[in-house]
Amino acid sequence: MSEVLELTCDLIRRRSVTPEDAGCLPLIGERLQRAGFHVEHLRYGEVDNLWATHGTGGSTLAFLGHTDVVPSGPEASWRSPPFEPTIRDGRLYGRGAADMKGSVAAMVVALEQFVAAHPDHRGRVGLLLTSDEEGPTNLDGVRKVVEHFRSVGERIDWCVVGEPSAKEKLGDLIRVGRRGSLSGTLRVRGVQGHVAYPEKALNPIHAFAPALTELAAERWDEGNSDFPPTSFQVSNLNAGTGATNVIPGELQALINFRYCTASSAEDLRARTEDILQRHGLDFTLDWNLSGEPFLTPPGGALRETVVAVCRELCSLDPEQSTGGGTSDGRFIAPMGAEVVEIGPVNATIHKVDECVALGELEQLPAVYRAVCERLLG
Amino acid sequence: MSEVLELTCDLIRRRSVTPEDAGCLPLIGERLQRAGFHVEHLRYGEVDNLWATHGTGGSTLAFLGHTDVVPSGPEASWRSPPFEPTIRDGRLYGRGAADMKGSVAAMVVALEQFVAAHPDHRGRVGLLLTSDEEGPTNLDGVRKVVEHFRSVGERIDWCVVGEPSAKEKLGDLIRVGRRGSLSGTLRVRGVQGHVAYPEKALNPIHAFAPALTELAAERWDEGNSDFPPTSFQVSNLNAGTGATNVIPGELQALINFRYCTASSAEDLRARTEDILQRHGLDFTLDWNLSGEPFLTPPGGALRETVVAVCRELCSLDPEQSTGGGTSDGRFIAPMGAEVVEIGPVNATIHKVDECVALGELEQLPAVYRAVCERLLG
Repeated sequence: MSEVLELTCDLIRRRSVTPEDAGCLPLIGERLQRAGFHVEHLRYGEVDNLWATHGTGGSTLAFLGHTDVVPSGPEASWRSPPFEPTIRDGRLYGRGAADMKGSVAAMVVALEQFVAAHPDHRGRVGLLLTSDEEGPTNLDGVRKVVEHFRSVGERIDWCVVGEPSAKEKLGDLIRVGRRGSLSGTLRVRGVQGHVAYPEKALNPIHAFAPALTELAAERWDEGNSDFPPTSFQVSNLNAGTGATNVIPGELQALINFRYCTASSAEDLRARTEDILQRHGLDFTLDWNLSGEPFLTPPGGALRETVVAVCRELCSLDPEQSTGGGTSDGRFIAPMGAEVVEIGPVNATIHKVDECVALGELEQLPAVYRAVCERLLG
Repeated sequence: MSEVLELTCDLIRRRSVTPEDAGCLPLIGERLQRAGFHVEHLRYGEVDNLWATHGTGGSTLAFLGHTDVVPSGPEASWRSPPFEPTIRDGRLYGRGAADMKGSVAAMVVALEQFVAAHPDHRGRVGLLLTSDEEGPTNLDGVRKVVEHFRSVGERIDWCVVGEPSAKEKLGDLIRVGRRGSLSGTLRVRGVQGHVAYPEKALNPIHAFAPALTELAAERWDEGNSDFPPTSFQVSNLNAGTGATNVIPGELQALINFRYCTASSAEDLRARTEDILQRHGLDFTLDWNLSGEPFLTPPGGALRETVVAVCRELCSLDPEQSTGGGTSDGRFIAPMGAEVVEIGPVNATIHKVDECVALGELEQLPAVYRAVCERLLG
């Protein structure tokens, strides 16, 4: 059994459902300490975070990942138990196999190999891991670590995120940025009443309908060369108490923008409120900006290096995408770092029978190590 | 203490929350039996119903009421306990005081007085009471009694419903018909997905918005000389699982028409489905027709009699309305009966501190008795 496969299996066996780490970080910390890394455990609230570095001065290349996983759902729905790593038909099955214990194991192995081969490498290489990436708030994970980094003057120049980015094959797609995510809780007030006396009530469902139609049809921007257009979605809409003869007094909607650099959060907030006001609605709208968009432009050393590694090791010219959800890269980018995401195929993540192809898993340490070699070797 | 006040208090003390009768109907049945009435107890499921008649042959004038009440809500919110009749400032307080134990007591007293004064009156006079009017389905109340009436050839020519119809003073408004009520459960299907990948999903909230806008703005008819226009309301609208990053796969809405005789239920169903289809929605819509509209036209003996009684006894020219919700009159009208509703002020019904003015309560037996006198005396 290869080193990366063995470590991935070790990690899958630990039921590290957010915010539990279940011993993943201590295991990794001890290994990296033995390999000569300086290891810091940063605990915030219930969350373990680990920051391990090797080398001093010069530029810092950091790998970023998480040891926590989403819940398995009903274990009986899985062909093999989710926390018992199982090899079947050339794939390793288990919760976290692709998102992202395989990547984490590959980073550890790659870093051990790199510092063994280059004990006196240029700059600094590091690994930043959290056990709070999959939770609803991510308050005590990388967000908090970066606050700490700022306070102590810690710097990161290049950041490789190991999130599963590939569509069909490792190296076919890398992420060079992410859209921002802006959420809102909208409450539209009406006047409750009996359905038989609509003239004495004001139905917030009816009142909201034309504004909703306009919001859903709005073209917020055209995107740009780096990003797809901003998208708007209402994820939840609720009004009524269940009683069939009562006109409800309030409607609540949860809205979300995934927005690109062609729009600002401030603009989107103003335009949304303008539409609601123009329809004469009595409303409140509480906003939550959970991540601003970030972009690592072409020509940067990290982006060019990762593309070159994909071409050489995977024989693929990777799509350089800014699509998909957010990642913890959104916290690192504002430090002034280039951020690029490369990891295994994401087809099974967050699903039953999550898996990673063995061939892909075995190739990952070489990919991560090659990035180290080219930037710091 | 007057007879009607004493009986109303007796009834309020009984906690007859639907479908409980709490002994109200046996109490009334025994009184009417002593007064010479033929009394039948009709029990369906958990529901008690009572049908008491006096006289034979000729036309039948039936009074219609219910002994069940809606729940009191938190008793601490009441100024005096809801099931302890309390007189304060010229009003009798208690759950059911206005809806409609006061009317029921007045009917009983009026009928006792009428048959005592006119033992050999023309035609037949009757009282039909149920303990299932306020519940959600009314399956085992007057609906079931009327099925029984049809099967045994029972007839009703004139029906006085004692529902609280007055706005500010007994006799200022009577109901001479009711709109129909047509409900629907609408399910609009989309395709569930992640908010970051809207191109792989179909948001049923967004898809439904233009159709909802059109439904809410639609003018279904202009009403007619007897009825206000048909009204449409969405009482409940729900989509989403609470998760903020998931585009829901389905939306559910409860809709309701209060419709007049200018439209038919069939037309309204067809027009609704046409709008939904025109917007290309994937939907199912399950309809429930809970009551067809009915009207007692001007010139009928009962309607003219009740109007004349209001003028004479209350010194008011009553508004002859078809507004408001439905009533059990909807089951009697299809028997071919004239149906007119007259009862006390409805301002406090279904609320805390429900009450009836003592003056109004004392006047009610005379009003009901005068209708008997004029039609059968």
